Amino acid sequence: MKLVRYGAVGAEKPGLIDAQGQLRDLSAHVADITPDWLAPDRLAALQALDVEALPVVDSASRLGAPFCGTRQFIAIGLNYSDHAEEAGMAIPAEPIMFTKGVSCIQGPNDDVRRPRGSEKMDWEVELGIVIGTRAAYVDKDKALDHVAGYVVCDDLSEREYQLERGGTWDKGKGCDTFGPVGPWLVTRDEVGDGQNLGMWLDVNGQRMQTGNTSTMIFDCATIVSYVSQFMVLLPGDIITTGTPPGVGMGMKPPVFLKEGDVVELGIEKLGSQRHTVRSWNDGV
Amino acid sequence: MKLVRYGAVGAEKPGLIDAQGQLRDLSAHVADITPDWLAPDRLAALQALDVEALPVVDSASRLGAPFCGTRQFIAIGLNYSDHAEEAGMAIPAEPIMFTKGVSCIQGPNDDVRRPRGSEKMDWEVELGIVIGTRAAYVDKDKALDHVAGYVVCDDLSEREYQLERGGTWDKGKGCDTFGPVGPWLVTRDEVGDGQNLGMWLDVNGQRMQTGNTSTMIFDCATIVSYVSQFMVLLPGDIITTGTPPGVGMGMKPPVFLKEGDVVELGIEKLGSQRHTVRSWNDGV
Repeated sequence: MKLVRYGAVGAEKPGLIDAQGQLRDLSAHVADITPDWLAPDRLAALQALDVEALPVVDSASRLGAPFCGTRQFIAIGLNYSDHAEEAGMAIPAEPIMFTKGVSCIQGPNDDVRRPRGSEKMDWEVELGIVIGTRAAYVDKDKALDHVAGYVVCDDLSEREYQLERGGTWDKGKGCDTFGPVGPWLVTRDEVGDGQNLGMWLDVNGQRMQTGNTSTMIFDCATIVSYVSQFMVLLPGDIITTGTPPGVGMGMKPPVFLKEGDVVELGIEKLGSQRHTVRSWNDGV
Repeated sequence: MKLVRYGAVGAEKPGLIDAQGQLRDLSAHVADITPDWLAPDRLAALQALDVEALPVVDSASRLGAPFCGTRQFIAIGLNYSDHAEEAGMAIPAEPIMFTKGVSCIQGPNDDVRRPRGSEKMDWEVELGIVIGTRAAYVDKDKALDHVAGYVVCDDLSEREYQLERGGTWDKGKGCDTFGPVGPWLVTRDEVGDGQNLGMWLDVNGQRMQTGNTSTMIFDCATIVSYVSQFMVLLPGDIITTGTPPGVGMGMKPPVFLKEGDVVELGIEKLGSQRHTVRSWNDGV
């Protein structure tokens, strides 16, 4: 099942994408796709609906993030060995965790904004894990039981803020608009093997990143288990799992995003995003 | 005004502490103290109530965190020059930001739990800033306008996870129960000058930390303005502002929390907390 939220910012309605790719409205069955609707029994109830009976909606509608109410947006750093190499950093012995502020979450195709004074805004296509049920100290072999599904994330980053302003990476990861999520939340049953998904990212039509989740250093089950040793994961939490090679920081010379640039990215089975870079104060 | 939430975990009711120190119920006026109730007009509406007409409640009730719905729990590191010295770290040139997972937030007197396998659980009394209205790119001279009030935080930390497990500090800061908040949310008007508040922390009755918010390197207005350059702050967000000297890591030899230890801490005008250290799986 592919869940979505569509409509104006702050007034999104729940929906799903049917087998023909049509957007259908779920408002008669659920007020919004909140964290409690990511539990297995709730997802099963939605999956049991007669899809043909759901109203078809204009597929050109704006999409929001495909669920709301995320309380924790965790990220794993340097989780593709070839990306660690391009970043000039050692392959980590255990997962590197950092955090994106949840206030940066937005729809997959909404404009993104270069922060005020920013000179090093960069892109990162990533597989996002969506937590369905509370997870604390879970073993690896049970970890995926806590996963509702997967999303595309652009883990937008400001490299100066991340690496040159002191303290932790968090400073460069949660800037306003730095968390496009979606287009769809694809449930785990529909994705199947999350460790064999092709992924790509283009800037202004030029392919920058090409990768596959098969080359993660730490796989999704390992990540969920690992993170749950350090904090309690809640329904609706997102763990974005690192990016393959091809970020701007790794180019020689480095290339960063400027206003007017168009970023497109996608992951096999999970759909694609397209966002345009604007100024920090454009459309706020 | 001193706002509180009282009652069983997950079923807290809103209340306030009156001038005589009595707990009074606010349920007839507000369902819960959610982020939207931290806006100036909402707080003013609560302050306009006839306190004497509010029902008195048993002051021995359990207290929860004094507001709910926090979406971002930001922390500032090494913000007292003498603490930076004891930690063996340089005084930062600009604020160090890290994050505590919101799933660690709990009541001020609830048991805290030493994480599974943890050997280096430590304490940190801190002044917590509570955001009342959305803040993005705010100037320092307007920053406190976005602050609803202040709380006591124990920024519990696992030093091995924070410093020896790779990646950012976040790994050792958001463990389950590591965010006792309260007892009260004291509104900014009642606190007055937030930069002249005495603070203290005892472990098993022995004074470990003594400080005053006057010795912060970066004051509250600077912190709110600074953080708002990197992310959008939302109502209900907490920024905990660093700890004075006297943490366990700084002792010679270091002293860490063990099961059965009792931690008491407080800040002038903001009340005090008392929590007992339990095992990771005790009472989960």
